[in-house]
Amino acid sequence: MSSSKEKRDYIQNVSYDSVIFGFNGSQLKILVLEYHNTGYFALPGGFVKMDQSLDDAVKNGVSQRTGLQDIYLEQFYTFGSLERSDPKIMEKILTENKLDLEQHQWMLGRFLSIGYYALINYEEVSLRPDELSDSINWYSIDELPPLMMDHKEMVDKALEVLRVNLDRKIVGTNLLPQKFTMRQLQEVYEAILGEKIRRTTFQRKMLSMEILVRHEKLFQGKAHKAPYLYSFK
Amino acid sequence: MSSSKEKRDYIQNVSYDSVIFGFNGSQLKILVLEYHNTGYFALPGGFVKMDQSLDDAVKNGVSQRTGLQDIYLEQFYTFGSLERSDPKIMEKILTENKLDLEQHQWMLGRFLSIGYYALINYEEVSLRPDELSDSINWYSIDELPPLMMDHKEMVDKALEVLRVNLDRKIVGTNLLPQKFTMRQLQEVYEAILGEKIRRTTFQRKMLSMEILVRHEKLFQGKAHKAPYLYSFK
Repeated sequence: MSSSKEKRDYIQNVSYDSVIFGFNGSQLKILVLEYHNTGYFALPGGFVKMDQSLDDAVKNGVSQRTGLQDIYLEQFYTFGSLERSDPKIMEKILTENKLDLEQHQWMLGRFLSIGYYALINYEEVSLRPDELSDSINWYSIDELPPLMMDHKEMVDKALEVLRVNLDRKIVGTNLLPQKFTMRQLQEVYEAILGEKIRRTTFQRKMLSMEILVRHEKLFQGKAHKAPYLYSFK
Repeated sequence: MSSSKEKRDYIQNVSYDSVIFGFNGSQLKILVLEYHNTGYFALPGGFVKMDQSLDDAVKNGVSQRTGLQDIYLEQFYTFGSLERSDPKIMEKILTENKLDLEQHQWMLGRFLSIGYYALINYEEVSLRPDELSDSINWYSIDELPPLMMDHKEMVDKALEVLRVNLDRKIVGTNLLPQKFTMRQLQEVYEAILGEKIRRTTFQRKMLSMEILVRHEKLFQGKAHKAPYLYSFK
């Protein structure tokens, strides 16, 4: 959201929300905004312009709200219950941001919200809260602040979809350097799955998936003791 | 859709479409409607009432449009490109059904459409076209009529999601009798994946997934030669 959104420019009753997963080599975190003077913590979200594709709306909106550029967002679920919308919460956000309630009346209605997620290396990005928000921060998935509306349910659903699809999704992400060790790959899996995995089991599984290329070790002093490096095919 | 839908009752610019997969023991088919006097073939779809959850809208709408009761529909993707909507197609459908264009003007706009799929045993159901449609029929996925708008893309996406998730989805479906042979299970897989699978490979994989219970053979004349029966855990 930015200020003064005209009703006629936007698809009514539709929003998007994004679950941005960040990994720093050991921990899985999620990006959360805090709205000015409300105590409301929320996933970065927004609306879809009438003349904009859904994917573009999400890509541009997330970039404006968070400062993150060029991240790959993937749709995971559309939330459509009647209970999920709460006009009181939206009214408070508008009021505290000194936005005209009359003009933004359409934001107090019922919303279907389309969920997107992204997986990024959070040490490579810099964040910038938008004008509606006090702060934007990474929170460990075990220590999230209380999220407004159904945003915690969105996080849980995104995590569920990500976990089920991890073997296929891991290849496209930039969570790892271009060449990585089996141990680094295992740490990504463990952070996302939220559990420890046996080294031998993990290695056997990864090699059997045939998604990895093993590289020759460079000839160095103790190179024969160094672990192999891999990249994705 | 049924006739005379009032604009104020529905979320604007949002629709749903459903890909109903049917299996009869050997072939995978899809349910397709044909609109009166238009030559348009389409997936069963409709709109979401302002006071109705998305899931309920889809469940009730599909049941009204097809005659199918109590089928389990699962969301798979929301289609949101600008190009997907075609007011000319909608106008022709309305005109040929003698519906007032003025009153239904809102149906000619841009629509985001939420895709749902279902997997059913098509020999256990009876179909009934709704008032907008000449016919509703099962078509083999290899022999679909040309579908309107992006409905073929929807079928492809649903099939892609189903194939990737088949190992998890197969348990909840009622594509098989309660007890089934390994061969029957393999036939479901082959129909959905669109390829032959080696019997030994398939059996090993299925048993390793630990989703099956093997039942004792009944003591009968040639029972020792009969195949084992399985059910899902």
